[in-house]
Amino acid sequence: MSSPPPSNATAENTNEPAELSKKAAKKEAAKQEKLKKKQEAAAAAAAAALAEASIADPLADNYGDIPLIELQSKAVTELKWTEVKSLSSDLKDQEVLVRGRVQAVRAVSKKMAFVVVREGLFTVQCVLMVAKEKVSEQMVKFANALSRESIVDIEGVISVPGEPIKGTSQQVEIQVRKIYCINRAISTLPINIEDAARSDAEIEEALKDGKQLVRVNQDTRLNYRVLDLRTPANQAIFHLSSEVEHEFRVFLRSEHFRGIHTPKTMGGTSEGGAAVFRFDYKGQPACLAQSPQLHKQMSISGDFRRVFEVGPVFRAEDSFTHRHLCEFTGLDVEMEIKAHYSEVMDIVDRLFVAIFDHLNENCQGELEAISRQYPFQPLKYLRKTLQLTFPEGIQMLKEAGIEVDPLGDLNTETERKLGELVRDKYDTEFYILHRYPSAIRPFYTMPCYDNASYSNSFDVFIRGEEIISGAQRIHDHEFLTKRAEACGIDVKTIATYLDSFKYGTPPHGGFGVGLERVVMLFCNLNNIRKTSQFPRDPQRLAP
Amino acid sequence: MSSPPPSNATAENTNEPAELSKKAAKKEAAKQEKLKKKQEAAAAAAAAALAEASIADPLADNYGDIPLIELQSKAVTELKWTEVKSLSSDLKDQEVLVRGRVQAVRAVSKKMAFVVVREGLFTVQCVLMVAKEKVSEQMVKFANALSRESIVDIEGVISVPGEPIKGTSQQVEIQVRKIYCINRAISTLPINIEDAARSDAEIEEALKDGKQLVRVNQDTRLNYRVLDLRTPANQAIFHLSSEVEHEFRVFLRSEHFRGIHTPKTMGGTSEGGAAVFRFDYKGQPACLAQSPQLHKQMSISGDFRRVFEVGPVFRAEDSFTHRHLCEFTGLDVEMEIKAHYSEVMDIVDRLFVAIFDHLNENCQGELEAISRQYPFQPLKYLRKTLQLTFPEGIQMLKEAGIEVDPLGDLNTETERKLGELVRDKYDTEFYILHRYPSAIRPFYTMPCYDNASYSNSFDVFIRGEEIISGAQRIHDHEFLTKRAEACGIDVKTIATYLDSFKYGTPPHGGFGVGLERVVMLFCNLNNIRKTSQFPRDPQRLAP
Repeated sequence: MSSPPPSNATAENTNEPAELSKKAAKKEAAKQEKLKKKQEAAAAAAAAALAEASIADPLADNYGDIPLIELQSKAVTELKWTEVKSLSSDLKDQEVLVRGRVQAVRAVSKKMAFVVVREGLFTVQCVLMVAKEKVSEQMVKFANALSRESIVDIEGVISVPGEPIKGTSQQVEIQVRKIYCINRAISTLPINIEDAARSDAEIEEALKDGKQLVRVNQDTRLNYRVLDLRTPANQAIFHLSSEVEHEFRVFLRSEHFRGIHTPKTMGGTSEGGAAVFRFDYKGQPACLAQSPQLHKQMSISGDFRRVFEVGPVFRAEDSFTHRHLCEFTGLDVEMEIKAHYSEVMDIVDRLFVAIFDHLNENCQGELEAISRQYPFQPLKYLRKTLQLTFPEGIQMLKEAGIEVDPLGDLNTETERKLGELVRDKYDTEFYILHRYPSAIRPFYTMPCYDNASYSNSFDVFIRGEEIISGAQRIHDHEFLTKRAEACGIDVKTIATYLDSFKYGTPPHGGFGVGLERVVMLFCNLNNIRKTSQFPRDPQRLAP
Repeated sequence: MSSPPPSNATAENTNEPAELSKKAAKKEAAKQEKLKKKQEAAAAAAAAALAEASIADPLADNYGDIPLIELQSKAVTELKWTEVKSLSSDLKDQEVLVRGRVQAVRAVSKKMAFVVVREGLFTVQCVLMVAKEKVSEQMVKFANALSRESIVDIEGVISVPGEPIKGTSQQVEIQVRKIYCINRAISTLPINIEDAARSDAEIEEALKDGKQLVRVNQDTRLNYRVLDLRTPANQAIFHLSSEVEHEFRVFLRSEHFRGIHTPKTMGGTSEGGAAVFRFDYKGQPACLAQSPQLHKQMSISGDFRRVFEVGPVFRAEDSFTHRHLCEFTGLDVEMEIKAHYSEVMDIVDRLFVAIFDHLNENCQGELEAISRQYPFQPLKYLRKTLQLTFPEGIQMLKEAGIEVDPLGDLNTETERKLGELVRDKYDTEFYILHRYPSAIRPFYTMPCYDNASYSNSFDVFIRGEEIISGAQRIHDHEFLTKRAEACGIDVKTIATYLDSFKYGTPPHGGFGVGLERVVMLFCNLNNIRKTSQFPRDPQRLAP
């Protein structure tokens, strides 16, 4: 048995109606199950034959499946593994040991085989060629029988071929001396990494030549997320995601912000409204926090001065869009302000320029890996972030022939349109729109001193989509209570929050960002499920 | 009106029965409400009188309450505020502007007053002395009427007194020229910071002199947490907490770990067991994650190789102890292992030595602030963390006359006893105990290769209390499923987790730590509620 057949079971058309696709999937699943059993029986027989054959092989110790007991921490090791990404011509003729996954096996003959081993974003070609006292025919046979995605240890000598190696990241080969299987993947995977890593462009290109390549749809990917996460684009996306958070922390610490953790379980209904998950907390009615808003403000009242929090945020909304999740990672900031909410916008400006710079300067390999599957243009942003007032935005739209309620909200379409107008006029895809109408902001938003119909608040946009909301908050107890009541909030449910403003609170403001949206829009991806490791939406609660 | 009277309403004895205390509190509350109204009326009258008086004062612009409208971002400011902690004799004769809280007001005469201003851990004495064209009698009167904890802006000139200043951190004074109130605290606070900051030793010392000082009990503190958080010890505790997390991240990044975020909402029952919060997720039965265990392991299967996560962890346990919370901050790690679970223990060893070193080297001021209220001895730890096997621990207990089931768990008491024995023998209060009995570890724990009654697992202790649990995990699908079934888990509920081991998974292991426990035990605090900003226990869901 050589490498497994392509799993056409997953060749789903993304536009296929859900019902049909379910039935087809069920039928296909039964078929696959049968096929799988057949293959497993064949694999077992092959393994048995192999085991018998290897007895007669003097090189039998140099390959084979490592029994589980050997992997139960039998001994501390002195061995050193080299990372695939470090394999270069500098190591020519040296012995190396690598651990990785079998990405592909190519059987050339009984005497020769290639195994491509992958570790993260990096791949290397490993060559088995029968040679006396080095590589036996049985060893080549063992390598050929490895299922894709199995974990292997490979020991060998680095060689540098005369010509460039196509299809692997590393431009050296390993001349294999030993090859052990650490953990075997089932032979028929629900999705193949190769299929999951394919760009739409490649599929369309092949179609022109009359070739139908497998396209793995979003739902199938998420059902088998651990496989899907192994694609180069996904490896890169989650690297980027962790770097966004890292730079967020580095920048804010340098500006004397302190990381906090506030509770996600709360009494009452969080900030009010219907979109909360409710549950019973030891006999008390409780809900999951829609944001750390109330507690981060209480931290300011508690003299923490400048705080940030990175944590889950829960929204029980029925929003089935490309940009909404029921649980996402919130990046939240709250700070004392001395005189003006522009102090908060100044932090947003410098923070995000620092994040974008960091990604562009330190994640080139990852950005390219994403681009190969999901092509995108680098984000346009200015050294000093553009700030427009909401009325200025409305005016720009008006001049472009789009009438918008000056005291109402922008919808997704007008936001996108305004993004285009701003890009064309100011050459930036990242800007701040401030002085929003009071009516569409939460009760705790400070109105403008000169016109209570507007507020000291702002939204921030990337490529025409909102990623950040922020504002100066009302720090006066009496005024805050009045505003809460006016907005129809049951003030009893947020009594501890309101009371905290009785004990002296400095003027303050802050903002909240969705981590998944930042990564999605920086890379111009089309769905937020691509930037959440295990997404949760109104229907998806697994894996 | 000078500074408010001490609020004896909160002078609760911690041993007082809850019932009595409730009744007393109710009565006291009514009394306080009456007092408050009286005081408020007096304050209003005083303010009115003051307003009238100030009309006649040519210096009237140099003091007063700033109206809210001025604080609604009326103008961007060019003013520079100096932090209280930066005030030193280097600034002698210079003009400064500070914003802080009124910690105390001392009226010396009609012509002189002292206002102590606090910003975080730091305090400075501000002097108002009547002087022509500088300070008027009305201005002194205004200062005297400021309620404690109000936010003020103070402008003045730095002077250096000949003698040390008692009771403030900064050894300079501000000769006040202008003083404005930004936000006024109510005049009768539910707890005074002075009371909340008092050590037990001070209370006992005073008692010897027949003086009864106010002791604020834990529940009252938590009810008015935003006030309680302002004490020096609490300012320091949460600074420490953020530094533990920071160093956790710095160290792990340097070891090529990547930060991830996994969902807190899950189908099924998390890792099984009763201690989960259940809720309805859009018609699907769901629960809050007891830990990121399943998803961090799936991240390893998804080729993330080395991951960490900092996030909330939910336990619906009815544990009313000094060391349990229903929601806490988990510091979680998972990593591929090459050969032995000692690779995981090695990370624990170096990570925690790095964290402890970081705190000792960079947080001396904070450690002293905590120590002043809650005295403690510095943690004893070795450069290379001591590792003992569980059987060795059992043997030490046996030699000390304590018989323990060699295949059972240690209880809190035997853990503490073993901690003492270890400290006496090895001079460390931080050590790893490994090779725990399999029967008391979760189903996914890898048994020892040589004896399945023991497992490749460990706990880590600080001052005799467990803070970390870790282990090698079972990476083999068939074996893992068998173990889950043997442990009575409904495997259907964790199907996506189990399935993820079919697609090739490297040997791996990891551990989980409670952030609140690390800080609590590093500082030898007596209650985990002291290290959680807004704690959640079986009864407490607010603030």
